[in-house]
Amino acid sequence: MMRTQPLKVALLGCGVVGSEVARIMTTHATDLAARIGAPVELAGVGVRRAGRERPGIDPQLFTTDSESLVKRDDIDVVVEVIGGIEPARTLILTAMEHGASVVSANKALLAEDGATLHAAAAKYGVDLYYEASVAGAIPLLRPLRESLAGDKVNRVLGIVNGTTNFILDRMDSTGAGFAEALDEATQLGYAEADPTADIEGFDAAAKAAILAGLAFHTRVTAADVYREGITEVTAADVASAKSMDSVVKLLAICERSADGTSVSARVHPAMIPRSHPLASVREAYNAVFVESEAAGSLMFYGPGAGGAPTASAVLGDLVAVCRNKLSETTGPGESAYANLEVRPVGQAVTRYHLNLDVADKPGVLAAVAAVFAKHDVSIDTVRQQGRDGDATLVIVTHSATDAALSATVDELRGLDIVRDIAGIMRVEGE
Amino acid sequence: MMRTQPLKVALLGCGVVGSEVARIMTTHATDLAARIGAPVELAGVGVRRAGRERPGIDPQLFTTDSESLVKRDDIDVVVEVIGGIEPARTLILTAMEHGASVVSANKALLAEDGATLHAAAAKYGVDLYYEASVAGAIPLLRPLRESLAGDKVNRVLGIVNGTTNFILDRMDSTGAGFAEALDEATQLGYAEADPTADIEGFDAAAKAAILAGLAFHTRVTAADVYREGITEVTAADVASAKSMDSVVKLLAICERSADGTSVSARVHPAMIPRSHPLASVREAYNAVFVESEAAGSLMFYGPGAGGAPTASAVLGDLVAVCRNKLSETTGPGESAYANLEVRPVGQAVTRYHLNLDVADKPGVLAAVAAVFAKHDVSIDTVRQQGRDGDATLVIVTHSATDAALSATVDELRGLDIVRDIAGIMRVEGE
Repeated sequence: MMRTQPLKVALLGCGVVGSEVARIMTTHATDLAARIGAPVELAGVGVRRAGRERPGIDPQLFTTDSESLVKRDDIDVVVEVIGGIEPARTLILTAMEHGASVVSANKALLAEDGATLHAAAAKYGVDLYYEASVAGAIPLLRPLRESLAGDKVNRVLGIVNGTTNFILDRMDSTGAGFAEALDEATQLGYAEADPTADIEGFDAAAKAAILAGLAFHTRVTAADVYREGITEVTAADVASAKSMDSVVKLLAICERSADGTSVSARVHPAMIPRSHPLASVREAYNAVFVESEAAGSLMFYGPGAGGAPTASAVLGDLVAVCRNKLSETTGPGESAYANLEVRPVGQAVTRYHLNLDVADKPGVLAAVAAVFAKHDVSIDTVRQQGRDGDATLVIVTHSATDAALSATVDELRGLDIVRDIAGIMRVEGE
Repeated sequence: MMRTQPLKVALLGCGVVGSEVARIMTTHATDLAARIGAPVELAGVGVRRAGRERPGIDPQLFTTDSESLVKRDDIDVVVEVIGGIEPARTLILTAMEHGASVVSANKALLAEDGATLHAAAAKYGVDLYYEASVAGAIPLLRPLRESLAGDKVNRVLGIVNGTTNFILDRMDSTGAGFAEALDEATQLGYAEADPTADIEGFDAAAKAAILAGLAFHTRVTAADVYREGITEVTAADVASAKSMDSVVKLLAICERSADGTSVSARVHPAMIPRSHPLASVREAYNAVFVESEAAGSLMFYGPGAGGAPTASAVLGDLVAVCRNKLSETTGPGESAYANLEVRPVGQAVTRYHLNLDVADKPGVLAAVAAVFAKHDVSIDTVRQQGRDGDATLVIVTHSATDAALSATVDELRGLDIVRDIAGIMRVEGE
């Protein structure tokens, strides 16, 4: 049954992930061949700069002319682990035009312009797989695309960025501030030299867009995702969460509206109870909850990044697309038939936590409560902490829209009795 | 792109799972059609006894002649949710012979005779999918078969039986004995009238065989799985675990040997530290850890049984095999190429916990330790609890073979100073 003619793979990018993909393709060649039904051969590696040593890879394979590499007739599969929008997009589209299936780990590109890539894959009859683009090695896209294909997903809630989880975990366990925890993350290699994409939530927002698209069979791009990073999270916020037996996490939340006609996706820090399974996700790990109608709540947990875990996801996809090549078929393509409205987050409802520094005198709570009531924001709990003529009100609301909460906060800031408002943070997971 | 001619599905069995499958096929027909690319039609339902009311299913569809149903030329997919070996096996083989792909939730059959079913699927060019056979709705087989196809799995460790987890969880939280906790499980519908398959570990052993087969690309049957149930677990064992900050769980463990040349699978109660993620799996939930070379440790968590969750898994498979039918292909078949030796558990090494009631006099510990040493079982910790001339030694060993531990226990029982040996239990998860 084994075909002896190898399937030829072009690798674009040979950094942490790419070199690991090349390594496993060599060391596990026999296993891969048995699982695919034909040997796979690394036929070329496109890199930006030639001449760098890559141990274990034949130097002859390297080229800085990736465009010519993806145009080669004999390439069956292109593995793209460059990242970023260009030249990745052009190379992928060129590869597809020349008949190659594509395995990509490129969350930014998939979240910005997945529709173009999917359309090209359908046009040229090739596969586009991208399990590695979200949550590293954790099988998440395949379960959403395939295992839950007969179910109705209502909500995806997860920690999908390891860098920010490491920082928030450190702030929680040591009491450190954001800057200090970021320094530690950088020193330990959990944060990049320029950490913007992680700490501002761009990385998580791209992943949220991909997850929402698959979960709801609707096109969702990164631009549709409401995004707040963690740079504003203070040691005081983390301490405040702690006093409520909660923990601050950067969450990606994709939700179907109650009436089922629209969806929303958002990324922001939120307080979740320490008893919630996501609260115990430590360091740079990722975990994602999927809530669906028939299956109930499923959780997927594992390393969300790193060369070897990401390479594992890439190779799983490589095996699948190679099998499809051999049987002259393709796997499931884009599924956007539901085409639901993607709503801005202003209409999404969540609970909120906030600390109000107020004058400690009679009638303050009544005045504050009246402002919440006026904007239709219902208060769940108030805890009052007095100190020397001042007092702090720790308020947790019932579900309210972002717009209503903002209006409430604006009006509260105008009151004489309110000295300061801090620790405004969403509350999730209850 | 949508085909208008429906794909026809025959359903074998219409109990808790089957009726839920039929219900979702009706209520979610539009979604299923969009995801498959063609409508699916329930063309017949094979049942043991006719005449029972099944709300929402056309009474005309029922037949007690399942054999004729699976022989029909127009049936594209047979969904088998009868369970048990016969008549399920014959019906599945007959269906395949007549060109139908099969979706099955039948762990007992897959674990006993999966090879025959896989061979028939290959011979007749049809699919055999069985995600629902292990851990209900939790996507586990597809990730093992596909997502990790480019990785090397070294260990699968999990809680795969909800009934026993419910019982052990109750024993842990209330201090109840086994019989009392089983009663509660039965009253609440978590245990069947005849709970043998669950409490004696047969159900978990079947699932372990299926998981080991997929993880190691090697045929493993239920008969290869070492099996101990939970009927011997006492309130004292659970209390003893508690005093060590551990909890007793029924674990399914599939392992590759250190040298990589053989594998083993076993199901038995074990003490795991309360800090281990599996320790927090409560009630009837399931969770499975998969440890692989590149991906690291992944965890999958969710409801392990129940009509709706199992139906979700069945329908995910149904969508996949229908898509394959439309594109005239089949998904990945059996992968048993590695063909590793399946070793008996006597050679598997684990740590052990045991309580020795001994005479409280000098030299006892030395005598006991000498017996362990003689059989090459190394002691990790000893805790001595004295009471009125007697003493209890709580011993945890380093890793040892079952055979070595048994020999040690046999010899200890022969010592005058040893009054009783209790609480012999494996220790895992450290």
